[in-house]
Amino acid sequence: MLRLYSMQSSGNSYKVRLLLAKLGLPFRLVDIDLLRGENRTPEFLIKNPEGRVPLLELPGGRLLAESNAILVYLAEGTSLLPEDRFARAEALRWMFFEQHSHEPAIAAARFWLKLVRGGRDLRTHDIDRWMEEGHAALAVMERHLGRRSFFVDNRLTVADIALYAHTHVAEEGDIDLAPFPNVRGWLARVAAEADHVGMEWRPENATAMPAL
Amino acid sequence: MLRLYSMQSSGNSYKVRLLLAKLGLPFRLVDIDLLRGENRTPEFLIKNPEGRVPLLELPGGRLLAESNAILVYLAEGTSLLPEDRFARAEALRWMFFEQHSHEPAIAAARFWLKLVRGGRDLRTHDIDRWMEEGHAALAVMERHLGRRSFFVDNRLTVADIALYAHTHVAEEGDIDLAPFPNVRGWLARVAAEADHVGMEWRPENATAMPAL
Repeated sequence: MLRLYSMQSSGNSYKVRLLLAKLGLPFRLVDIDLLRGENRTPEFLIKNPEGRVPLLELPGGRLLAESNAILVYLAEGTSLLPEDRFARAEALRWMFFEQHSHEPAIAAARFWLKLVRGGRDLRTHDIDRWMEEGHAALAVMERHLGRRSFFVDNRLTVADIALYAHTHVAEEGDIDLAPFPNVRGWLARVAAEADHVGMEWRPENATAMPAL
Repeated sequence: MLRLYSMQSSGNSYKVRLLLAKLGLPFRLVDIDLLRGENRTPEFLIKNPEGRVPLLELPGGRLLAESNAILVYLAEGTSLLPEDRFARAEALRWMFFEQHSHEPAIAAARFWLKLVRGGRDLRTHDIDRWMEEGHAALAVMERHLGRRSFFVDNRLTVADIALYAHTHVAEEGDIDLAPFPNVRGWLARVAAEADHVGMEWRPENATAMPAL
């Protein structure tokens, strides 16, 4: 069975849980809480020396890191990864945008303002940069969605799943979505699609990381 | 004919030129110099509202942004994009790493220290962060290359091309490669592969951006 090392409150991990739920693929969830240092145990560092989640483990033991690479791997051959060569490249275009220009700002703001206890009081100077870069990324999305229902092919693809994960909780990082009506409409459309699950969803078989 | 909007000194643009040279694909190069604001002209913003290069234009006029998405699009069906599903996902894993954890630090350091006139004197506080993040990214590469000749499948793929572009000029951004012998060995192997071209290479048909 597939095994997913995942942090429940992590947007990058949620992407993969959401896709697995949509595909109806059974998987074992292994909780790794970065805030409790569970990504720095010897058990986990053997799996991923970078100490990052999500991490996908295939039945034979092969391991795959990077949330968006995992999405593409799992979605191959399904309607969530376009079959057309150019549309598939466009989906990748938005997934690279997400990891380069969107997640580093929007997820960082939420991580420090919402998830880290006392993080709001730190008020590091980076918060201004995250706000600026986060708003710039949302402006790019807003313009693109002005004439489209979804990011590629006017239907839900892995590009939407990648961008939805951090965007739908952006306000937890004090990034106001009010100026972005197209983005808000798209968030509602994504959440209304078949087999959608929220960030809190988890399969019944979740376990802790087994000891060495 | 394919048209590539490219900045000659940009690592992200170089990735695509290197791949096109390897594939022997004819293309027209259109120079866009960000340092002269040529990415902010009405002519270019119609093509890419984000004002970024590289940008690939297909013969029918369709446009594709994001260097790594362009690499995957162009390499499909060639030996530079693995055919095996898992190996292809691993190539993406390294390309997402590059855009998330490598390029933002290593390319930014080179941009401000080498390319921008007077940028070295600015000494913004971000330089310390770029050094720290750049060294962390190189350490990840160094460990991975300890047992491998190339990033995926022990042969050259688009993952190597993506990572090579900024790494081989990292020292122009004051990031010392001496502590990373595996990375230096890999750089030499990439440069020794068939049909390699350096960053200075350009096709003979380069043009300036046509006016509206």
